Amino acid sequence: MGFPMSLRLMQAGFDVRGVDRDERTRKRFTEAGGGAALTMAEAARDAQALLLLVVNAAQAEDVLFGTDGAARMMPPGGVVLLSLTASPQSAAGIGARLAEHDLRMVDAPVSGGVKRAADGTLTILASGPSADVDAARRFLAPLGNVHEIGPLHGQASTVKLINQLLCGVHLVAAAEAVALAERAGVDLRVLHRVVTASSGTSHMFASRAPMMRGDDRPPTAAINILLKDLALVDALGTSVGAHMPLARTALELFGEASSQGAGARNDYEIIQYLRLSVP
Amino acid sequence: MGFPMSLRLMQAGFDVRGVDRDERTRKRFTEAGGGAALTMAEAARDAQALLLLVVNAAQAEDVLFGTDGAARMMPPGGVVLLSLTASPQSAAGIGARLAEHDLRMVDAPVSGGVKRAADGTLTILASGPSADVDAARRFLAPLGNVHEIGPLHGQASTVKLINQLLCGVHLVAAAEAVALAERAGVDLRVLHRVVTASSGTSHMFASRAPMMRGDDRPPTAAINILLKDLALVDALGTSVGAHMPLARTALELFGEASSQGAGARNDYEIIQYLRLSVP
Repeated sequence: MGFPMSLRLMQAGFDVRGVDRDERTRKRFTEAGGGAALTMAEAARDAQALLLLVVNAAQAEDVLFGTDGAARMMPPGGVVLLSLTASPQSAAGIGARLAEHDLRMVDAPVSGGVKRAADGTLTILASGPSADVDAARRFLAPLGNVHEIGPLHGQASTVKLINQLLCGVHLVAAAEAVALAERAGVDLRVLHRVVTASSGTSHMFASRAPMMRGDDRPPTAAINILLKDLALVDALGTSVGAHMPLARTALELFGEASSQGAGARNDYEIIQYLRLSVP
Repeated sequence: MGFPMSLRLMQAGFDVRGVDRDERTRKRFTEAGGGAALTMAEAARDAQALLLLVVNAAQAEDVLFGTDGAARMMPPGGVVLLSLTASPQSAAGIGARLAEHDLRMVDAPVSGGVKRAADGTLTILASGPSADVDAARRFLAPLGNVHEIGPLHGQASTVKLINQLLCGVHLVAAAEAVALAERAGVDLRVLHRVVTASSGTSHMFASRAPMMRGDDRPPTAAINILLKDLALVDALGTSVGAHMPLARTALELFGEASSQGAGARNDYEIIQYLRLSVP
């Protein structure tokens, strides 16, 4: 995701430095006109803004505050765009630590895959002090549509988690539907055509059901990503006393898949755990 | 649904007789240029086609084969368009009984609400002998897009049930999302705007979440309808050995709501059973 987003920012006229562990990615990025850096400290030096696309809060804290961390290298008033799916508490905590470095932060999780990143049509959530969100707009605008959620760090993360609740449940629902169709002898192409024109459709069904039936297999997110997200959803629900029987059931299924060694596989392969296990 | 569909058929030039228990509906239908009948026998006399929009297989069998039933009144070769959500076995059984009366049948469940019915943009599933589906096309074409599913009665019903699995699960998922958002202090309008632009969206979330937050409350389907559909899904899954943990969980929630007296309420009010019950 970071690669196409960086290209969009360069096209918008920004001077972009990118950090990636993979040497080939750094080479591709340099060839595309970007500046490649080996460490966050190197990339963050004198940067007005830092767009952070990492998997979880621990990674974010490491690259910001660890050895060679970015926070000490950015000029005062610089803005960190925190794009990850984390707990609201983690996002708020990172914002508070950045403030100690005289840095601003926007809690800015995104939705949309690589294609929408390349097209600059991501859905971008943004929460934080409105002056900071305003300061971030010129960096976010080339990437997609910015939805301002509220003045507090964590508010955008909360909305993102609710979106992930729906993603996780819808993905398992799609897998249940496809696995049932297989056993009932339904043509999966017909099923996809009918459901996407009917009241049973969802983004996840529309995008993942074709992959479940075996054709088109671009990499999607990994099972472990949705497992992590659903665990965060579960913790959020527990903290506010919400009752979420479907999200809990989906979490258990992803946990089962991961514990059986499938965590790194594409998320739609969760269907294997419905195909195999008969009640 | 039957009313706007009948209007579409009249606009297409067909002579339509409608049956409804409600006298006001019959009066409205006569004023719109239709013929109103009190009994199915009266409506079916000499009819080339019979479009049957009833709730379940028992109702369909009653109006077709019961006292004043339609089957004995239709001319040989007449075609019955069976639009209901039933088990594949029920649809096949009704088809076989109609064949004994020299009548043809298309298993023809539909998806889409009153508005799409009025616009003639329903999604119509159709299965049965292809000559019969072809004979039915001129009656179905004014109503929406016909998806031919296969040559056997029951095949369209199977696909419809899989769609209902998704509807039921997505509705409960939407309720979980909205109930979580309420407890977490998320603005529900913002949630709807973000989710419908993100990977977590579904038809059910997009259409029902606004009703759950209290505004726009046109009548939708009743909780008992989805309960009946999910029970049929459960039976289908059991019969083919499918594992459907989410569908089972949704079925239990609808069953709980119905047993507490909420069966006749709008389906989106299922959220009350997530708001009330804290684990």
